[in-house]
Amino acid sequence: MIRNTIKRFMTYTFKPSKQTSSFGPSVWLEFSPLAIKYDSVNLGQGFPNFEPPKFVKDAMIKTIEVGGFNQYTRSPGHLRLVKALSSVYSPYFDRELNPMTEIMVGVGASESLFAAISSIVNKGDEVILIEPFFDIYIGPILMAGGIPKFVTLKEDSESINGAPRSSKNWKINKEELAAAFSDKTKLIIINNPHNPVGKVYSKEELQEIADVVVKHGPNTTVISDEVYEWMTFDGVKHHRFATLPGMWDRTITIGSAGKTFSITGWKVGWCIGPANIIGAIANTHQYIPFSVPTPTQEAVAIALEQPNIKEYFVELATMYQKKRDTLLNTLTQAGLDPVIPEGTYFIMGDTSSIKLQGDQGKDTSITGMGLHLRDWNIARYLTTEYGVTTIPPSAFYCDDHQKIPENFVRFTFCKDDVTLQRAHSNLLKLKK
Amino acid sequence: MIRNTIKRFMTYTFKPSKQTSSFGPSVWLEFSPLAIKYDSVNLGQGFPNFEPPKFVKDAMIKTIEVGGFNQYTRSPGHLRLVKALSSVYSPYFDRELNPMTEIMVGVGASESLFAAISSIVNKGDEVILIEPFFDIYIGPILMAGGIPKFVTLKEDSESINGAPRSSKNWKINKEELAAAFSDKTKLIIINNPHNPVGKVYSKEELQEIADVVVKHGPNTTVISDEVYEWMTFDGVKHHRFATLPGMWDRTITIGSAGKTFSITGWKVGWCIGPANIIGAIANTHQYIPFSVPTPTQEAVAIALEQPNIKEYFVELATMYQKKRDTLLNTLTQAGLDPVIPEGTYFIMGDTSSIKLQGDQGKDTSITGMGLHLRDWNIARYLTTEYGVTTIPPSAFYCDDHQKIPENFVRFTFCKDDVTLQRAHSNLLKLKK
Ligand SMILES: Cc1ncc(COP(=O)(O)O)c(C=O)c1O
Ligand SMILES: Cc1ncc(COP(=O)(O)O)c(C=O)c1O
Repeated sequence: MIRNTIKRFMTYTFKPSKQTSSFGPSVWLEFSPLAIKYDSVNLGQGFPNFEPPKFVKDAMIKTIEVGGFNQYTRSPGHLRLVKALSSVYSPYFDRELNPMTEIMVGVGASESLFAAISSIVNKGDEVILIEPFFDIYIGPILMAGGIPKFVTLKEDSESINGAPRSSKNWKINKEELAAAFSDKTKLIIINNPHNPVGKVYSKEELQEIADVVVKHGPNTTVISDEVYEWMTFDGVKHHRFATLPGMWDRTITIGSAGKTFSITGWKVGWCIGPANIIGAIANTHQYIPFSVPTPTQEAVAIALEQPNIKEYFVELATMYQKKRDTLLNTLTQAGLDPVIPEGTYFIMGDTSSIKLQGDQGKDTSITGMGLHLRDWNIARYLTTEYGVTTIPPSAFYCDDHQKIPENFVRFTFCKDDVTLQRAHSNLLKLKK
Repeated sequence: MIRNTIKRFMTYTFKPSKQTSSFGPSVWLEFSPLAIKYDSVNLGQGFPNFEPPKFVKDAMIKTIEVGGFNQYTRSPGHLRLVKALSSVYSPYFDRELNPMTEIMVGVGASESLFAAISSIVNKGDEVILIEPFFDIYIGPILMAGGIPKFVTLKEDSESINGAPRSSKNWKINKEELAAAFSDKTKLIIINNPHNPVGKVYSKEELQEIADVVVKHGPNTTVISDEVYEWMTFDGVKHHRFATLPGMWDRTITIGSAGKTFSITGWKVGWCIGPANIIGAIANTHQYIPFSVPTPTQEAVAIALEQPNIKEYFVELATMYQKKRDTLLNTLTQAGLDPVIPEGTYFIMGDTSSIKLQGDQGKDTSITGMGLHLRDWNIARYLTTEYGVTTIPPSAFYCDDHQKIPENFVRFTFCKDDVTLQRAHSNLLKLKK
């Protein structure tokens, strides 16, 4: 009784839900503010600092001027956009995609992933992630009560033979992958082309994954995050997991207009897959944003309807290959022995040549994260002492594996040439 | 062993996660398509069918033309927007709102609610909803493993005394509310002004709720969904739950630019509340959309910065009051004895005067929902036979209470005058 009385007059205290209570500020909240504070060249977060193509901006201006696209649209995707996506993607999936049932539009790839993961993963289910993994995957898994299992991409040093380092030497060990499966495995997420390594899986590698899934996780659903699908270099071809024999039925492919049209701030993404899974995801999505903003969907549809859209995709890759080569050259000259990426707009640079004194770099932290991790301290040190901001890749590794990437930082080259030039000058000071 | 072998060669079957498996298509997927199919005047879903104000469209066009707002912005909200929100709202909350810590921008009120509910509710926690409740609340509660408890707003017929029906006669019974609390209560969601009833809670009613919360649920967090905050009529004043003595610390207030600027399709909404709760919500939000589209946030910020923004809010209410009166007049003439709303852009119309033969109306269903519910069948019947589409309010009641609102349908008046005129002509056929 006394207890009860005390409880009744207790002051209110807020406790976040258990499933979200481990969430803190993310890596992005450390390095973007830090870059601003030190007026550092920001090669951290992956967004272009140049304007999107004129036809994309014009599509948006026209959409607003014409009017009629300012209200809610169809929850699973604006009609014109799902139709445009079906036209563009059907040939790449070797099938006629049904725009009404096999495509769902989300608020960027991010919310598409959130809705998909939530619709698949139960409390206690296991989800296999390939490390390094894009950090946003972990949120929806934990919120659903899922248990992440990690399989690490490892750089195959024997295959190097003195040749330049390449993302294709980062490999999954088939036995390790098989061992990660259990009766509880519900989902595996692959990211291809891969952020941050830049790896583009070969058809054989994908088939190997598919074989393991069928053998060791027959009821496992696959999410293939392909937001960098159009950015592959040196003629490397991007293969879609969903097009492997038998894989369509279990695969959700994720895409994003943000990457493709240099409009990361428009947040238009999508899921493509079989009607039963897309239907479940669309039902969940009704309760998250209900619908995706209409004007951006209309404008992205117009952009995708450009008759020369395929040439645009090729031009995009060509533009990024040039930028990649510029940054590769910078990193090599600066002694940051880069892993040449076959795709994406990221490069892993090796910082072994930089010597830090203990936890030097930690004192400039804004959020207090990663104070004793070499990659975080190097990333701070490069920002504050050399004026170039990167991302520490341990943000993409699980708690137990924080030290694995300690000698790397992730650079992005989705920046205008002036920025890449400034980064060049700043980084070359490392050689002085 | 044999079992194991069988399992290994099983074909893949997809099972949605338990927490989302009860989700099906929602009421919106029945009536919008039905309205189109029967070329019916759509007074169903609550979105304006007129263009937003010119200054809002101009703000968006300028944002795209100027450039620089096409990439990711700050995850918890675009800087210019959180600052504008702080300026506009601080006086209404009787405190200086910190734009960096006490405001978070979401993808509409919807994702703001999703992020908030997910950040508060644990598996097994109870959440009190006031029935009828906006249907979107249920999704995030179930996904978090929460248990909804329902308290029903009841029309107080004794207080009517022959006067016209008013939303103010729909009341919560204080004892029922108190009884709904338990040791497990984590959250109560109130919606003020209230969709679909149109009720605007008086200060006394809000204080009564606050008293019950403090007494019976001392650790209960409150979400006050105030998306219709600027739409109150006949001089009725909107009071904010967060401004009641002691309530700021536990209250998250939800707003939406969609309602205020007639841009439901832009999906810009927000949470306002104490820094500790907003911080938790912002952490979760990083994993849902990561950030809200930048151009719409910039444009909404510009719109909010209009020097005459307070007059705009008043004009908005004036415009909607006229439309309300037009529709009230129509419904009265058509014998659909309306409940006069003090706020929102909805009216509950009483369909008792319409006689249906058994489940007449069910055969025209598109989704197969609500086949044996009178309000669903009436809503279909009004669409197919009279050319006016409404929403059956049982969509806003729990499974056990589906019959409570059987004699009502919800009309919206956020439509242009031609549409309201067409609805008038069509509904008056009920009197022939
Ligand atoms: C691998 C990967 N997936 C998903 C996303 C999120 O895409 P969006 O901006 O469309 O939400 C990103 C963005 O950096 C990414 O790198
Ligand atoms: C009570 C209520 N809350 C929230 C919303 C969702 O608002 P938004 O469109 O900003 O997501 C609505 C929309 O109808 C509503 O009526």
